[in-house]
Amino acid sequence: MSLQKELDLRDLASIGEELHGFAAQLYPICRSITGNGLRKTLQILQERIPMQTVEVPTGTPVFDWTVPKEWNIRDAYIRIPGGERIVDFQQNNLHVLNYSVPVHDTMPLDQLRPHLFSLPDHPNWIPYRTSYYKSNWGFCLSHNQLQALEDRDYEVCIDSTLEDGHLTYGEYYLPGRSIDEVLISCHSCHPSLANDNLSGLSVATFLADFLSGRDLRYSYRFVFVPGTIGAITWLARNRESIQHIRHGLVLSGIGDRGGFHYKKSRRGDVEIDRAARHVLKHCSESPEILDFSPYGYDERQYCSPGFNLPVGCLMRSVWGAFPEYHTSADNLDFIQPTQLAQSLRVLATIVDVLESNRRYQNLNPFCEPQLGKRNLYRLTGGGSIGTEINACLWVLNLSDGEHSLLDIAERSGLPFSAIRDASDRMCQAGLLSVSPEKENHKKSITRAAGAEADV
Amino acid sequence: MSLQKELDLRDLASIGEELHGFAAQLYPICRSITGNGLRKTLQILQERIPMQTVEVPTGTPVFDWTVPKEWNIRDAYIRIPGGERIVDFQQNNLHVLNYSVPVHDTMPLDQLRPHLFSLPDHPNWIPYRTSYYKSNWGFCLSHNQLQALEDRDYEVCIDSTLEDGHLTYGEYYLPGRSIDEVLISCHSCHPSLANDNLSGLSVATFLADFLSGRDLRYSYRFVFVPGTIGAITWLARNRESIQHIRHGLVLSGIGDRGGFHYKKSRRGDVEIDRAARHVLKHCSESPEILDFSPYGYDERQYCSPGFNLPVGCLMRSVWGAFPEYHTSADNLDFIQPTQLAQSLRVLATIVDVLESNRRYQNLNPFCEPQLGKRNLYRLTGGGSIGTEINACLWVLNLSDGEHSLLDIAERSGLPFSAIRDASDRMCQAGLLSVSPEKENHKKSITRAAGAEADV
Amino acid sequence: MSLQKELDLRDLASIGEELHGFAAQLYPICRSITGNGLRKTLQILQERIPMQTVEVPTGTPVFDWTVPKEWNIRDAYIRIPGGERIVDFQQNNLHVLNYSVPVHDTMPLDQLRPHLFSLPDHPNWIPYRTSYYKSNWGFCLSHNQLQALEDRDYEVCIDSTLEDGHLTYGEYYLPGRSIDEVLISCHSCHPSLANDNLSGLSVATFLADFLSGRDLRYSYRFVFVPGTIGAITWLARNRESIQHIRHGLVLSGIGDRGGFHYKKSRRGDVEIDRAARHVLKHCSESPEILDFSPYGYDERQYCSPGFNLPVGCLMRSVWGAFPEYHTSADNLDFIQPTQLAQSLRVLATIVDVLESNRRYQNLNPFCEPQLGKRNLYRLTGGGSIGTEINACLWVLNLSDGEHSLLDIAERSGLPFSAIRDASDRMCQAGLLSVSPEKENHKKSITRAAGAEADV
Repeated sequence: MSLQKELDLRDLASIGEELHGFAAQLYPICRSITGNGLRKTLQILQERIPMQTVEVPTGTPVFDWTVPKEWNIRDAYIRIPGGERIVDFQQNNLHVLNYSVPVHDTMPLDQLRPHLFSLPDHPNWIPYRTSYYKSNWGFCLSHNQLQALEDRDYEVCIDSTLEDGHLTYGEYYLPGRSIDEVLISCHSCHPSLANDNLSGLSVATFLADFLSGRDLRYSYRFVFVPGTIGAITWLARNRESIQHIRHGLVLSGIGDRGGFHYKKSRRGDVEIDRAARHVLKHCSESPEILDFSPYGYDERQYCSPGFNLPVGCLMRSVWGAFPEYHTSADNLDFIQPTQLAQSLRVLATIVDVLESNRRYQNLNPFCEPQLGKRNLYRLTGGGSIGTEINACLWVLNLSDGEHSLLDIAERSGLPFSAIRDASDRMCQAGLLSVSPEKENHKKSITRAAGAEADV
Repeated sequence: MSLQKELDLRDLASIGEELHGFAAQLYPICRSITGNGLRKTLQILQERIPMQTVEVPTGTPVFDWTVPKEWNIRDAYIRIPGGERIVDFQQNNLHVLNYSVPVHDTMPLDQLRPHLFSLPDHPNWIPYRTSYYKSNWGFCLSHNQLQALEDRDYEVCIDSTLEDGHLTYGEYYLPGRSIDEVLISCHSCHPSLANDNLSGLSVATFLADFLSGRDLRYSYRFVFVPGTIGAITWLARNRESIQHIRHGLVLSGIGDRGGFHYKKSRRGDVEIDRAARHVLKHCSESPEILDFSPYGYDERQYCSPGFNLPVGCLMRSVWGAFPEYHTSADNLDFIQPTQLAQSLRVLATIVDVLESNRRYQNLNPFCEPQLGKRNLYRLTGGGSIGTEINACLWVLNLSDGEHSLLDIAERSGLPFSAIRDASDRMCQAGLLSVSPEKENHKKSITRAAGAEADV
Repeated sequence: MSLQKELDLRDLASIGEELHGFAAQLYPICRSITGNGLRKTLQILQERIPMQTVEVPTGTPVFDWTVPKEWNIRDAYIRIPGGERIVDFQQNNLHVLNYSVPVHDTMPLDQLRPHLFSLPDHPNWIPYRTSYYKSNWGFCLSHNQLQALEDRDYEVCIDSTLEDGHLTYGEYYLPGRSIDEVLISCHSCHPSLANDNLSGLSVATFLADFLSGRDLRYSYRFVFVPGTIGAITWLARNRESIQHIRHGLVLSGIGDRGGFHYKKSRRGDVEIDRAARHVLKHCSESPEILDFSPYGYDERQYCSPGFNLPVGCLMRSVWGAFPEYHTSADNLDFIQPTQLAQSLRVLATIVDVLESNRRYQNLNPFCEPQLGKRNLYRLTGGGSIGTEINACLWVLNLSDGEHSLLDIAERSGLPFSAIRDASDRMCQAGLLSVSPEKENHKKSITRAAGAEADV
């Protein structure tokens, strides 16, 4: 049975609630690109999937970058000296400029102001800002809060540490029949932001759990990495094994009410690009397919020219294109159980396509075989045929060893599942056999490996 | 002179009447995929063209199929025992389920009902239904007739035979200068249905007659075969010679008032696909070009993956897409003399393209040749040039041995006839010569022949 | 600094006035495909650029053509014998059929009428008509003038000479670092017609002057030739050197108020086609890109199949598509200083693209390089990035030695200048290096040269 059908037989509504609950469990943690918030997040994921975590020491060179010092934070606030907290990290971890160096001082508003970030267009929301690679400290607050500040002295405190430590990432490998693998990558560094990217973390974790223990064609590798530096670190440590990546997806922002967006890989026409487009067309309303661009999530690294991996990015609303992006309004109300569950279903359907997409050979290629004598055709002629017979005719006609099932689905306009079911029926009837797989490995990897010495 | 011009010099209106009269002569005959109705139909065609008929014995294996028993019918009816006929084969041969086994019995309505076919949405029309490969008997009747039947006993009689005999088809071969050939195929098995396919039979017969006795570039092969099993039988008996098919057309449903539809070959971009599209664009209103699909007429067999022949299908209204399809409303009023004549003209124009489409070489390829000194240009400069000179400039510019006249017609937007006439003028002026023909044979046939042993 | 930026720092309005003044200086001269009007025109151009002129004797064979006799004219008129001039060449040189043989006679209106040309649809305008290759004489006059002629005798006089002499053309070669060259070609044979083609002559002359004395990647060759016969003569005399033409533009009709039109080369996708399309898209409103056709200006000759040069044609309004075309209404009011200056700017921007378009190699192809540590990235994360960083990311991602800067500009949707500036920044940062140039010479020239012997 296909994964999609299996999911449909379960209660999608309760799966959605469970996904949302999982995201809610992760929501309060103050994550960053290193540190204990990130570690705790991965521990919670490990309660569902037997994932490994990797600790990479500060100072490790990773391509053009270096693993930074580890950041941890206990508390942060602004207050009138001796008074109550005006801005309080304990209420919302977005209040602190992520990766702020420690500070404890009293200063007038004029001196404090360059360290304050707000959103004049959304005066009730707190922005999310970071300063990973430039030593700085700061507070993010609502514009209303900022404007209410009187011109006087304030006590500012950021009780953080920036010390030699580790960058932590999680990796879960599900071996399949082939060493060729499917990569699913999520960034796991954002603090209390629900769509970006607790939605991705939750759905990927549930998908990993759903795939566990199955007899799979491909191996599946789930990586949960801090954005940019984490993906770069993972790539630097896995230059040998990435040659096995046949298909890949970056997941982010898949819990909001927006329609699906799929951003194509740099290559633009690889199988994951076509599978994602096909599934979204048949399983969702008004999906949009975006061309690759070198800005976005970690597909930037996977699709850098030296790797050029077949990795696309699945989203609902696109980063930067919705007002709640990188603000406190990207909260648990912004993501919905129904949307989370549908995203899981779409992913399962994409996996269905990847698992079943093959080329077949029609064993009776001269004229149509007589389906009727095999009880595979209607009995009375003259009327119209249905989708099942139509799918069989398409499979027979195009199964010449050149066309894959996905090719046939696209050319016929029928959903992949109908084409796959027809190919199953034709195989059972002895009319079709699997073609030997074409050597499809990414030559660019070999080229990349050769080029490495020059860098 | 082109065939199109020659037709235009005749009286197209009277040709249309003659075509309609020919269809009317064929209309009453009860055809099927075998039997005397089919034989009589081919005999009437032979009055116009010296066609051969071939009789293939029952039981002959043809690929995955077997030539069935021969079906003949003398009479059929339903009546109240001893009363008048309520449903009468003598009034309309659609009343009998085609290929019904013999039956003579009296039975209550309940027992009869599973053998009755009607069309609730069109209560006055009789459907056309068949049961070639499943032993059954039945009657087709209007829904009004069905609903008027009282709950009582009926005498049912189908005086048919299903015995060892033959499948009959007709074939007319017109040799040309080349053994490369153009295939024109029509199904000839439908009983009293005018558009589907007496229109195809009539127009093909007239085209064959019109081409007879001419000096032709290609050889032309007209085949009149029962649908599916007939095309399969013909292909099975002609596996050697089909390698000569350079272009092919299945003709069906070309007499009704609908606009033209051309369904492309499985390959989708062969010369017949481009020629048909070009001619329809310039010679008809709002033609539609359809992608290949494995459902339809006998292009299903010609375009099966083992053959993959360059055969498209020319229609007006598309099978199954008009309400009269496979009903008694597809009668002689449904097809029109004007439409039949225009279909003949379109076919003649397609043949014009195939006959004249070649590559030429500009013998003065450096700069334009001076047309003026050859009296091929306007005398006074400064104003605009006309289509004739424009066509000459296009022919000269693109005749580099790579572009065919059809390429030039498509790129220039001019009709093929204007481009062909310009190439004639340029040849006469010594400015152009024919390029050697490119080897264009279908490699897939060789592959198919090699693959046959495995089947 | 780019040529475009340099122009923008000057006063474009005054450049426009200067261009218009230059056209006004050329306007009164009676040019033709040979003769003193053409010579005088080239002399005026030589006051601005150190151009060579070439004199080719009458009778010289040039491919399929022959250099014609030289035509000169002193005077021409129609008058009532002994009365005032009714039609007077001194008032407008369009009044004489260009290349008229001499005539001095008195004749009745009936005999004169076949020699008179007018425009009934524009009764105040004088048409421009020629008779280069058919011996004839005639007068062009407004339709109002024609209709006012009484039925009586007229004295007609055309004081012209058609004698052995020369065809004159101008050529200005600006050597660059490479012998590969950019061809700019204008026809220079039209008498008092401002847009067609004093606009082209003026803008090309100013561009040549603007490029003079610079360190250029390509060599630039400006040719000012009489239409058709002049381009043919130039090609016949330069068959060796045209192999160096990498890009070319024919300029005509670039002074009127119409939007830009670029007509693609016969090849349709060469670099000049893409550069012109890109620049027009980013630097002008509603530009239109036209497919190649073998009618138009001298691109007809450059793109004849034996040469097939990468030469397109830049226009505003298209020949024959505006009512003033080839009439006295194509006068100095019809062209505008603003439009002439903008055309010069567009050309300079196209030259900018050609000069800078190269392929680069990302020297850190594995993952993104860390722009932040090189002060090439924003300091605080979480918000949006601007065009500058975006352009850098595109350049880094696609600089794999395969994509040119123009490829990157087109794929990113950013203007070429932003991409070029980004590539400069990345080179300075040591992140990018120039790829070796691909061998890009026109194989067709070699083929053409080989084919010549057969003609």
